[in-house]
Amino acid sequence: MDKKNHQVYGIRAIIEAVNANEEVDKVFIQKGLRGDLIKELESLLRRNDITVSYVPPEKLNRLTKNNHQGAVANISPISFHSLEELVEKAETNEKPALFLLLDQLSDVRNFGAIIRTAECTGVNGIIIQKKGAAPVTSDTIKTSAGAAFKVPIAKVDHLKDAIFYLQSSGVKVISATEKTNNSVYDISLKESIAIVMGSEDRGISPSILKTSDELAKLPLLGEIGSLNVSVACAVFLYEAVRQRL
Amino acid sequence: MDKKNHQVYGIRAIIEAVNANEEVDKVFIQKGLRGDLIKELESLLRRNDITVSYVPPEKLNRLTKNNHQGAVANISPISFHSLEELVEKAETNEKPALFLLLDQLSDVRNFGAIIRTAECTGVNGIIIQKKGAAPVTSDTIKTSAGAAFKVPIAKVDHLKDAIFYLQSSGVKVISATEKTNNSVYDISLKESIAIVMGSEDRGISPSILKTSDELAKLPLLGEIGSLNVSVACAVFLYEAVRQRL
Repeated sequence: MDKKNHQVYGIRAIIEAVNANEEVDKVFIQKGLRGDLIKELESLLRRNDITVSYVPPEKLNRLTKNNHQGAVANISPISFHSLEELVEKAETNEKPALFLLLDQLSDVRNFGAIIRTAECTGVNGIIIQKKGAAPVTSDTIKTSAGAAFKVPIAKVDHLKDAIFYLQSSGVKVISATEKTNNSVYDISLKESIAIVMGSEDRGISPSILKTSDELAKLPLLGEIGSLNVSVACAVFLYEAVRQRL
Repeated sequence: MDKKNHQVYGIRAIIEAVNANEEVDKVFIQKGLRGDLIKELESLLRRNDITVSYVPPEKLNRLTKNNHQGAVANISPISFHSLEELVEKAETNEKPALFLLLDQLSDVRNFGAIIRTAECTGVNGIIIQKKGAAPVTSDTIKTSAGAAFKVPIAKVDHLKDAIFYLQSSGVKVISATEKTNNSVYDISLKESIAIVMGSEDRGISPSILKTSDELAKLPLLGEIGSLNVSVACAVFLYEAVRQRL
Protein backbone atom coordinates (compact mmCIF):
# COMPACT_ATOMS: atom_id res chain seq x y z
CA MET A 1 0.00 0.00 0.00
CA ASP A 2 1.25 3.46 -0.90
CA LYS A 3 -0.21 5.53 1.95
CA LYS A 4 1.39 8.75 0.77
CA ASN A 5 -0.24 8.59 -2.67
CA HIS A 6 -3.42 7.05 -1.25
CA GLN A 7 -3.15 3.99 -3.48
CA VAL A 8 -3.23 0.24 -3.18
CA TYR A 9 -2.00 -1.90 -6.11
CA GLY A 10 -2.17 -5.57 -6.91
CA ILE A 11 -5.37 -7.64 -6.85
CA ARG A 12 -4.69 -9.45 -3.60
CA ALA A 13 -3.61 -6.28 -1.81
CA ILE A 14 -6.84 -4.55 -2.86
CA ILE A 15 -8.93 -7.51 -1.61
CA GLU A 16 -7.13 -7.29 1.71
CA ALA A 17 -7.61 -3.50 1.90
CA VAL A 18 -11.37 -3.82 1.33
CA ASN A 19 -11.63 -6.63 3.88
CA ALA A 20 -9.64 -4.53 6.38
CA ASN A 21 -12.22 -1.74 5.94
CA GLU A 22 -9.76 0.65 4.30
CA GLU A 23 -11.69 3.47 2.60
CA VAL A 24 -11.37 2.27 -1.00
CA ASP A 25 -12.88 4.98 -3.22
CA LYS A 26 -12.50 3.57 -6.69
CA VAL A 27 -10.70 0.64 -8.34
CA PHE A 28 -9.09 0.65 -11.78
CA ILE A 29 -8.88 -2.82 -13.35
CA GLN A 30 -7.06 -3.66 -16.58
CA LYS A 31 -9.46 -4.43 -19.44
CA GLY A 32 -9.71 -8.11 -20.34
CA LEU A 33 -8.10 -9.42 -17.15
CA ARG A 34 -9.29 -13.00 -16.35
CA GLY A 35 -8.93 -15.46 -13.49
CA ASP A 36 -10.42 -16.53 -10.16
CA LEU A 37 -8.70 -13.81 -8.17
CA ILE A 38 -10.05 -11.00 -10.34
CA LYS A 39 -13.56 -12.54 -10.06
CA GLU A 40 -13.19 -12.60 -6.29
CA LEU A 41 -12.17 -8.92 -6.31
CA GLU A 42 -15.06 -7.94 -8.60
CA SER A 43 -17.68 -9.61 -6.44
CA LEU A 44 -16.17 -8.10 -3.28
CA LEU A 45 -16.29 -4.60 -4.84
CA ARG A 46 -19.90 -5.14 -5.93
CA ARG A 47 -20.93 -6.21 -2.42
CA ASN A 48 -19.24 -3.11 -0.98
CA ASP A 49 -20.69 -0.71 -3.56
CA ILE A 50 -17.23 0.38 -4.72
CA THR A 51 -16.97 1.92 -8.20
CA VAL A 52 -14.89 0.00 -10.75
CA SER A 53 -13.39 1.42 -13.93
CA TYR A 54 -12.00 -0.88 -16.66
CA VAL A 55 -9.00 0.75 -18.32
CA PRO A 56 -6.14 -0.02 -20.75
CA PRO A 57 -2.77 -0.95 -19.14
CA GLU A 58 -1.28 2.46 -20.10
CA LYS A 59 -3.70 4.17 -17.72
CA LEU A 60 -2.59 1.92 -14.85
CA ASN A 61 1.06 2.65 -15.66
CA ARG A 62 0.30 6.33 -15.40
CA LEU A 63 -1.44 5.86 -12.03
CA THR A 64 1.50 4.09 -10.41
CA LYS A 65 5.12 3.21 -11.11
CA ASN A 66 4.77 0.13 -8.93
CA ASN A 67 4.03 -3.37 -10.17
CA HIS A 68 0.24 -3.11 -10.22
CA GLN A 69 -0.58 -6.55 -11.72
CA GLY A 70 -3.58 -5.08 -13.49
CA ALA A 71 -5.33 -3.35 -10.58
CA VAL A 72 -4.96 -0.04 -8.75
CA ALA A 73 -7.26 1.27 -6.01
CA ASN A 74 -7.59 4.82 -4.78
CA ILE A 75 -8.03 5.00 -1.06
CA SER A 76 -9.58 7.98 0.62
CA PRO A 77 -7.17 10.23 2.51
CA ILE A 78 -9.73 10.58 5.31
CA SER A 79 -11.70 8.09 7.40
CA PHE A 80 -15.46 8.16 7.30
CA HIS A 81 -17.88 7.84 10.18
CA SER A 82 -21.26 6.17 10.41
CA LEU A 83 -24.39 8.30 10.46
CA GLU A 84 -25.31 6.75 13.80
CA GLU A 85 -21.99 7.90 15.30
CA LEU A 86 -22.53 11.45 14.01
CA VAL A 87 -26.02 11.65 15.51
CA GLU A 88 -24.96 10.11 18.84
CA LYS A 89 -22.03 12.50 19.15
CA ALA A 90 -24.24 15.53 18.36
CA GLU A 91 -26.73 14.42 21.01
CA THR A 92 -24.05 14.68 23.71
CA ASN A 93 -23.70 18.40 22.88
CA GLU A 94 -25.70 21.01 24.71
CA LYS A 95 -26.26 22.93 21.47
CA PRO A 96 -28.88 21.88 18.92
CA ALA A 97 -27.38 19.81 16.11
CA LEU A 98 -26.43 21.18 12.70
CA PHE A 99 -25.96 18.61 9.92
CA LEU A 100 -25.29 19.06 6.24
CA LEU A 101 -26.48 16.65 3.53
CA LEU A 102 -25.01 16.91 0.06
CA ASP A 103 -27.17 15.40 -2.68
CA GLN A 104 -24.99 14.32 -5.64
CA LEU A 105 -22.65 17.27 -5.37
CA SER A 106 -20.02 16.39 -7.96
CA ASP A 107 -17.35 19.10 -7.98
CA VAL A 108 -14.42 18.31 -5.66
CA ARG A 109 -13.58 22.01 -5.19
CA ASN A 110 -17.14 22.90 -4.22
CA PHE A 111 -17.07 19.94 -1.85
CA GLY A 112 -13.81 21.20 -0.31
CA ALA A 113 -15.12 24.76 0.01
CA ILE A 114 -18.26 23.47 1.73
CA ILE A 115 -16.25 21.36 4.21
CA ARG A 116 -14.20 24.48 5.07
CA THR A 117 -17.30 26.56 5.76
CA ALA A 118 -18.86 23.67 7.70
CA GLU A 119 -15.85 23.63 10.02
CA CYS A 120 -16.17 27.38 10.60
CA THR A 121 -19.88 27.16 11.41
CA GLY A 122 -19.69 24.25 13.83
CA VAL A 123 -21.41 21.66 11.63
CA ASN A 124 -21.66 18.33 13.51
CA GLY A 125 -21.26 16.21 10.41
CA ILE A 126 -21.58 16.07 6.63
CA ILE A 127 -23.57 13.26 5.06
CA ILE A 128 -22.99 12.18 1.46
CA GLN A 129 -24.23 9.26 -0.60
CA LYS A 130 -21.79 6.50 -1.63
CA LYS A 131 -22.78 6.64 -5.27
CA GLY A 132 -22.61 9.87 -7.29
CA ALA A 133 -20.91 12.07 -4.70
CA ALA A 134 -17.62 13.89 -5.28
CA PRO A 135 -14.83 11.83 -3.71
CA VAL A 136 -12.52 13.21 -1.05
CA THR A 137 -9.40 13.79 -3.15
CA SER A 138 -6.24 15.75 -2.39
CA ASP A 139 -7.93 18.67 -4.21
CA THR A 140 -10.93 18.44 -1.87
CA ILE A 141 -8.59 18.51 1.11
CA LYS A 142 -6.62 21.44 -0.28
CA THR A 143 -9.77 23.50 -1.00
CA SER A 144 -11.07 22.62 2.45
CA ALA A 145 -7.93 24.22 3.98
CA GLY A 146 -7.49 21.02 5.99
CA ALA A 147 -11.03 21.08 7.39
CA ALA A 148 -11.65 17.66 5.80
CA PHE A 149 -9.62 16.20 8.67
CA LYS A 150 -11.76 17.99 11.26
CA VAL A 151 -15.40 17.72 10.18
CA PRO A 152 -16.74 14.16 10.44
CA ILE A 153 -18.16 12.87 7.16
CA ALA A 154 -20.55 9.92 6.79
CA LYS A 155 -21.08 8.02 3.54
CA VAL A 156 -24.50 6.41 3.32
CA ASP A 157 -26.10 4.03 0.82
CA HIS A 158 -29.18 6.20 0.32
CA LEU A 159 -29.53 9.82 1.35
CA LYS A 160 -33.27 9.32 1.75
CA ASP A 161 -32.79 6.67 4.43
CA ALA A 162 -30.38 9.04 6.19
CA ILE A 163 -33.12 11.68 6.18
CA PHE A 164 -35.62 9.25 7.76
CA TYR A 165 -33.03 8.36 10.39
CA LEU A 166 -32.32 12.02 11.18
CA GLN A 167 -36.03 12.81 11.39
CA SER A 168 -36.60 9.89 13.77
CA SER A 169 -33.78 11.34 15.89
CA GLY A 170 -35.61 14.67 16.18
CA VAL A 171 -33.69 16.54 13.49
CA LYS A 172 -35.66 18.85 11.17
CA VAL A 173 -34.57 18.48 7.53
CA ILE A 174 -34.50 21.67 5.45
CA SER A 175 -33.80 21.58 1.71
CA ALA A 176 -32.16 24.60 0.07
CA THR A 177 -34.08 25.01 -3.17
CA GLU A 178 -35.54 27.62 -5.47
CA LYS A 179 -38.70 25.52 -5.78
CA THR A 180 -40.50 27.21 -2.90
CA ASN A 181 -41.85 30.57 -1.80
CA ASN A 182 -40.35 30.27 1.70
CA SER A 183 -37.34 32.44 2.41
CA VAL A 184 -34.73 31.01 4.76
CA TYR A 185 -35.14 34.25 6.72
CA ASP A 186 -38.72 33.31 7.60
CA ILE A 187 -38.01 29.92 9.12
CA SER A 188 -36.47 28.94 12.43
CA LEU A 189 -33.05 27.29 12.37
CA LYS A 190 -32.71 27.25 16.14
CA GLU A 191 -33.66 23.65 16.86
CA SER A 192 -31.67 20.62 15.63
CA ILE A 193 -31.59 20.77 11.83
CA ALA A 194 -30.03 19.22 8.76
CA ILE A 195 -29.59 21.39 5.67
CA VAL A 196 -29.70 19.67 2.27
CA MET A 197 -27.76 21.16 -0.66
CA GLY A 198 -28.23 19.83 -4.19
CA SER A 199 -25.93 19.17 -7.11
CA GLU A 200 -24.49 21.98 -9.23
CA ASP A 201 -26.65 21.23 -12.27
CA ARG A 202 -29.79 19.47 -11.13
CA GLY A 203 -30.34 20.74 -7.59
CA ILE A 204 -31.97 18.40 -5.05
CA SER A 205 -33.70 15.22 -6.27
CA PRO A 206 -37.52 15.42 -6.20
CA SER A 207 -37.82 12.45 -3.82
CA ILE A 208 -35.58 14.21 -1.28
CA LEU A 209 -37.49 17.48 -1.63
CA LYS A 210 -40.66 15.51 -0.86
CA THR A 211 -39.13 13.90 2.23
CA SER A 212 -37.88 17.23 3.66
CA ASP A 213 -39.68 18.97 6.54
CA GLU A 214 -39.17 22.40 5.01
CA LEU A 215 -38.03 23.95 1.75
CA ALA A 216 -36.25 27.28 1.90
CA LYS A 217 -34.64 29.63 -0.59
CA LEU A 218 -32.39 32.65 -0.58
CA PRO A 219 -33.74 35.89 -2.04
CA LEU A 220 -32.17 36.54 -5.46
CA LEU A 221 -32.24 40.22 -6.39
CA GLY A 222 -30.53 40.00 -9.78
CA GLU A 223 -31.24 38.45 -13.13
CA ILE A 224 -28.90 35.48 -13.33
CA GLY A 225 -30.94 33.72 -10.69
CA SER A 226 -28.49 31.22 -9.24
CA LEU A 227 -25.70 31.16 -6.70
CA ASN A 228 -22.69 28.88 -6.60
CA VAL A 229 -23.63 25.92 -4.36
CA SER A 230 -20.75 26.48 -1.91
CA VAL A 231 -21.76 30.14 -1.59
CA ALA A 232 -25.45 29.31 -1.05
CA CYS A 233 -24.46 26.67 1.51
CA ALA A 234 -22.38 29.22 3.44
CA VAL A 235 -25.25 31.69 3.58
CA PHE A 236 -27.61 28.99 4.93
CA LEU A 237 -25.08 27.82 7.54
CA TYR A 238 -24.33 31.36 8.70
CA GLU A 239 -28.02 32.13 9.00
CA ALA A 240 -28.21 29.19 11.43
CA VAL A 241 -25.18 30.60 13.29
CA ARG A 242 -26.84 34.05 13.46
CA GLN A 243 -30.16 32.73 14.75
CA ARG A 244 -28.39 30.69 17.44
CA LEU A 245 -26.19 33.55 18.74
CA MET B 1 -7.65 43.48 -33.23
CA ASP B 2 -8.80 39.97 -32.34
CA LYS B 3 -12.03 40.72 -30.44
CA LYS B 4 -12.86 37.04 -29.91
CA ASN B 5 -9.57 36.30 -28.17
CA HIS B 6 -9.49 39.72 -26.49
CA GLN B 7 -6.13 40.60 -27.99
CA VAL B 8 -4.53 43.42 -29.92
CA TYR B 9 -1.19 42.80 -31.64
CA GLY B 10 1.33 45.04 -33.30
CA ILE B 11 2.82 48.17 -31.69
CA ARG B 12 0.82 50.72 -33.69
CA ALA B 13 -2.45 48.83 -33.16
CA ILE B 14 -1.88 48.76 -29.42
CA ILE B 15 -1.16 52.52 -29.35
CA GLU B 16 -4.41 53.10 -31.21
CA ALA B 17 -6.33 50.80 -28.87
CA VAL B 18 -5.08 52.66 -25.78
CA ASN B 19 -5.86 56.02 -27.37
CA ALA B 20 -9.35 54.80 -28.31
CA ASN B 21 -9.90 53.94 -24.61
CA GLU B 22 -10.08 50.21 -25.23
CA GLU B 23 -9.67 48.39 -21.89
CA VAL B 24 -6.08 47.26 -22.30
CA ASP B 25 -5.24 45.02 -19.31
CA LYS B 26 -1.64 44.08 -19.89
CA VAL B 27 0.90 44.39 -22.72
CA PHE B 28 3.58 41.83 -23.59
CA ILE B 29 6.60 43.36 -25.35
CA GLN B 30 9.47 41.41 -26.89
CA LYS B 31 12.70 41.77 -24.88
CA GLY B 32 15.31 44.01 -26.46
CA LEU B 33 12.95 45.69 -28.95
CA ARG B 34 14.23 49.19 -29.93
CA GLY B 35 12.90 52.16 -31.90
CA ASP B 36 10.83 55.32 -31.64
CA LEU B 37 7.51 53.54 -31.95
CA ILE B 38 8.21 51.19 -29.04
CA LYS B 39 9.31 54.19 -26.94
CA GLU B 40 6.04 55.94 -27.77
CA LEU B 41 4.10 52.82 -26.72
CA GLU B 42 6.04 52.49 -23.47
CA SER B 43 5.45 56.06 -22.42
CA LEU B 44 1.76 55.82 -23.34
CA LEU B 45 1.40 52.66 -21.21
CA ARG B 46 3.20 54.34 -18.31
CA ARG B 47 0.88 57.37 -18.46
CA ASN B 48 -2.14 55.05 -18.46
CA ASP B 49 -0.88 52.79 -15.63
CA ILE B 50 -0.97 49.73 -17.84
CA THR B 51 1.19 46.77 -16.79
CA VAL B 52 3.98 45.76 -19.19
CA SER B 53 5.76 42.43 -19.26
CA TYR B 54 8.98 41.96 -21.27
CA VAL B 55 9.10 38.46 -22.73
CA PRO B 56 11.09 36.33 -25.20
CA PRO B 57 9.62 36.06 -28.75
CA GLU B 58 8.54 32.43 -28.11
CA LYS B 59 6.05 33.65 -25.48
CA LEU B 60 4.51 36.09 -27.99
CA ASN B 61 4.26 33.32 -30.57
CA ARG B 62 2.35 31.25 -28.05
CA LEU B 63 0.00 34.15 -27.30
CA THR B 64 -1.03 34.68 -30.92
CA LYS B 65 -0.59 33.08 -34.33
CA ASN B 66 -0.87 36.50 -35.94
CA ASN B 67 2.03 38.71 -36.96
CA HIS B 68 2.57 40.46 -33.62
CA GLN B 69 5.67 42.53 -34.53
CA GLY B 70 6.94 42.16 -30.98
CA ALA B 71 3.90 43.31 -29.01
CA VAL B 72 0.64 41.71 -27.85
CA ALA B 73 -1.96 43.35 -25.61
CA ASN B 74 -4.71 41.65 -23.64
CA ILE B 75 -7.90 43.62 -23.68
CA SER B 76 -10.55 43.17 -21.06
CA PRO B 77 -13.69 41.34 -22.22
CA ILE B 78 -15.82 43.82 -20.24
CA SER B 79 -16.01 47.62 -20.11
CA PHE B 80 -15.30 49.40 -16.89
CA HIS B 81 -17.18 52.33 -15.38
CA SER B 82 -15.98 55.31 -13.40
CA LEU B 83 -16.55 55.42 -9.65
CA GLU B 84 -18.46 58.68 -10.11
CA GLU B 85 -20.87 56.96 -12.54
CA LEU B 86 -21.44 54.11 -10.10
CA VAL B 87 -22.23 56.48 -7.23
CA GLU B 88 -24.48 58.72 -9.35
CA LYS B 89 -26.44 55.74 -10.64
CA ALA B 90 -26.89 54.31 -7.13
CA GLU B 91 -28.17 57.71 -5.93
CA THR B 92 -31.06 57.58 -8.41
CA ASN B 93 -32.26 54.36 -6.72
CA GLU B 94 -34.76 54.49 -3.91
CA LYS B 95 -32.89 51.79 -2.02
CA PRO B 96 -29.76 52.51 -0.01
CA ALA B 97 -26.59 51.78 -1.97
CA LEU B 98 -24.55 48.61 -1.63
CA PHE B 99 -20.99 48.73 -2.97
CA LEU B 100 -18.21 46.20 -2.82
CA LEU B 101 -14.51 47.09 -2.68
CA LEU B 102 -11.91 44.39 -3.33
CA ASP B 103 -8.47 45.14 -1.92
CA GLN B 104 -5.80 43.28 -3.92
CA LEU B 105 -7.89 40.18 -4.44
CA SER B 106 -5.70 38.14 -6.78
CA ASP B 107 -7.49 34.91 -7.65
CA VAL B 108 -9.58 35.18 -10.85
CA ARG B 109 -11.96 32.42 -9.73
CA ASN B 110 -12.62 34.07 -6.38
CA PHE B 111 -13.17 37.31 -8.28
CA GLY B 112 -15.66 35.59 -10.60
CA ALA B 113 -17.49 33.92 -7.72
CA ILE B 114 -17.78 37.28 -5.92
CA ILE B 115 -19.17 39.01 -9.04
CA ARG B 116 -21.79 36.25 -9.29
CA THR B 117 -22.90 36.70 -5.69
CA ALA B 118 -22.83 40.50 -6.10
CA GLU B 119 -25.29 40.21 -8.98
CA CYS B 120 -27.61 38.05 -6.88
CA THR B 121 -27.55 40.48 -3.94
CA GLY B 122 -28.19 43.66 -5.93
CA VAL B 123 -24.74 45.20 -5.50
CA ASN B 124 -24.62 48.62 -7.23
CA GLY B 125 -21.00 48.28 -8.25
CA ILE B 126 -17.67 46.63 -7.55
CA ILE B 127 -14.59 48.79 -7.09
CA ILE B 128 -11.09 47.40 -7.66
CA GLN B 129 -7.68 49.00 -7.83
CA LYS B 130 -5.84 49.19 -11.18
CA LYS B 131 -2.64 47.71 -9.79
CA GLY B 132 -2.56 44.35 -8.03
CA ALA B 133 -6.16 43.29 -8.67
CA ALA B 134 -7.13 40.07 -10.43
CA PRO B 135 -7.91 40.92 -14.08
CA VAL B 136 -11.26 40.14 -15.68
CA THR B 137 -10.28 37.10 -17.75
CA SER B 138 -12.44 34.55 -19.53
CA ASP B 139 -12.07 32.41 -16.36
CA THR B 140 -13.43 35.27 -14.25
CA ILE B 141 -16.41 35.58 -16.59
CA LYS B 142 -17.03 31.83 -16.57
CA THR B 143 -16.90 31.60 -12.76
CA SER B 144 -19.18 34.64 -12.56
CA ALA B 145 -21.82 32.74 -14.61
CA GLY B 146 -21.99 35.77 -16.89
CA ALA B 147 -22.60 38.21 -14.03
CA ALA B 148 -19.43 40.11 -15.04
CA PHE B 149 -21.49 41.57 -17.91
CA LYS B 150 -24.21 42.74 -15.52
CA VAL B 151 -22.56 44.19 -12.42
CA PRO B 152 -20.76 47.48 -13.14
CA ILE B 153 -17.09 47.41 -12.17
CA ALA B 154 -14.90 50.48 -11.59
CA LYS B 155 -11.11 50.40 -11.68
CA VAL B 156 -9.52 53.14 -9.58
CA ASP B 157 -5.95 54.33 -9.12
CA HIS B 158 -6.07 54.09 -5.33
CA LEU B 159 -8.69 52.28 -3.32
CA LYS B 160 -8.14 54.68 -0.45
CA ASP B 161 -9.19 57.68 -2.57
CA ALA B 162 -12.27 55.72 -3.64
CA ILE B 163 -13.11 55.24 0.04
CA PHE B 164 -12.82 59.00 0.71
CA TYR B 165 -15.05 59.67 -2.29
CA LEU B 166 -17.66 57.16 -1.11
CA GLN B 167 -17.60 58.58 2.41
CA SER B 168 -18.06 62.12 1.09
CA SER B 169 -21.08 60.78 -0.85
CA GLY B 170 -22.66 59.53 2.36
CA VAL B 171 -21.65 55.88 2.05
CA LYS B 172 -20.50 54.08 5.21
CA VAL B 173 -17.42 51.91 4.58
CA ILE B 174 -17.27 48.58 6.45
CA SER B 175 -14.17 46.38 6.30
CA ALA B 176 -14.56 42.62 6.68
CA THR B 177 -11.70 41.63 8.94
CA GLU B 178 -10.80 39.35 11.82
CA LYS B 179 -8.94 42.25 13.45
CA THR B 180 -11.93 43.46 15.46
CA ASN B 181 -14.32 42.34 18.19
CA ASN B 182 -17.39 43.60 16.31
CA SER B 183 -19.59 40.93 14.77
CA VAL B 184 -21.31 41.82 11.50
CA TYR B 185 -24.53 40.77 13.23
CA ASP B 186 -24.20 43.66 15.69
CA ILE B 187 -23.92 46.48 13.15
CA SER B 188 -26.50 48.06 10.90
CA LEU B 189 -26.19 47.48 7.16
CA LYS B 190 -29.44 49.28 6.36
CA GLU B 191 -28.08 52.65 5.23
CA SER B 192 -25.86 53.12 2.14
CA ILE B 193 -22.74 51.02 2.65
CA ALA B 194 -19.62 49.75 0.94
CA ILE B 195 -18.15 46.44 2.10
CA VAL B 196 -14.38 45.95 1.77
CA MET B 197 -12.98 42.44 1.26
CA GLY B 198 -9.23 41.80 1.45
CA SER B 199 -6.81 39.61 -0.44
CA GLU B 200 -6.65 35.83 0.05
CA ASP B 201 -3.33 35.89 1.88
CA ARG B 202 -2.88 39.27 3.51
CA GLY B 203 -6.43 40.48 4.15
CA ILE B 204 -7.15 44.22 4.00
CA SER B 205 -4.21 46.68 4.00
CA PRO B 206 -3.73 48.49 7.35
CA SER B 207 -4.23 51.93 5.75
CA ILE B 208 -7.63 50.88 4.42
CA LEU B 209 -8.64 49.39 7.76
CA LYS B 210 -7.78 52.75 9.34
CA THR B 211 -9.86 54.68 6.80
CA SER B 212 -12.94 52.47 7.26
CA ASP B 213 -15.94 53.62 9.29
CA GLU B 214 -16.45 50.20 10.83
CA LEU B 215 -14.67 46.87 11.09
CA ALA B 216 -16.77 43.73 11.26
CA LYS B 217 -16.09 40.00 11.44
CA LEU B 218 -18.00 36.78 11.06
CA PRO B 219 -18.18 34.44 14.06
CA LEU B 220 -15.86 31.44 13.51
CA LEU B 221 -16.89 28.44 15.58
CA GLY B 222 -14.20 25.98 14.45
CA GLU B 223 -10.47 25.71 14.73
CA ILE B 224 -9.20 26.52 11.23
CA GLY B 225 -10.19 30.12 11.72
CA SER B 226 -10.60 31.38 8.17
CA LEU B 227 -13.19 31.32 5.43
CA ASN B 228 -12.66 31.46 1.70
CA VAL B 229 -12.92 35.13 0.70
CA SER B 230 -15.77 34.57 -1.78
CA VAL B 231 -17.69 32.69 0.89
CA ALA B 232 -17.11 35.40 3.53
CA CYS B 233 -18.14 38.05 1.00
CA ALA B 234 -21.40 36.21 0.29
CA VAL B 235 -22.27 36.00 3.98
CA PHE B 236 -21.66 39.76 4.40
CA LEU B 237 -23.71 40.64 1.32
CA TYR B 238 -26.60 38.39 2.33
CA GLU B 239 -26.61 39.86 5.84
CA ALA B 240 -27.18 43.24 4.15
CA VAL B 241 -29.97 41.69 2.06
CA ARG B 242 -31.55 40.21 5.21
CA GLN B 243 -31.43 43.45 7.19
CA ARG B 244 -32.99 45.36 4.30
CA LEU B 245 -35.90 42.95 3.71
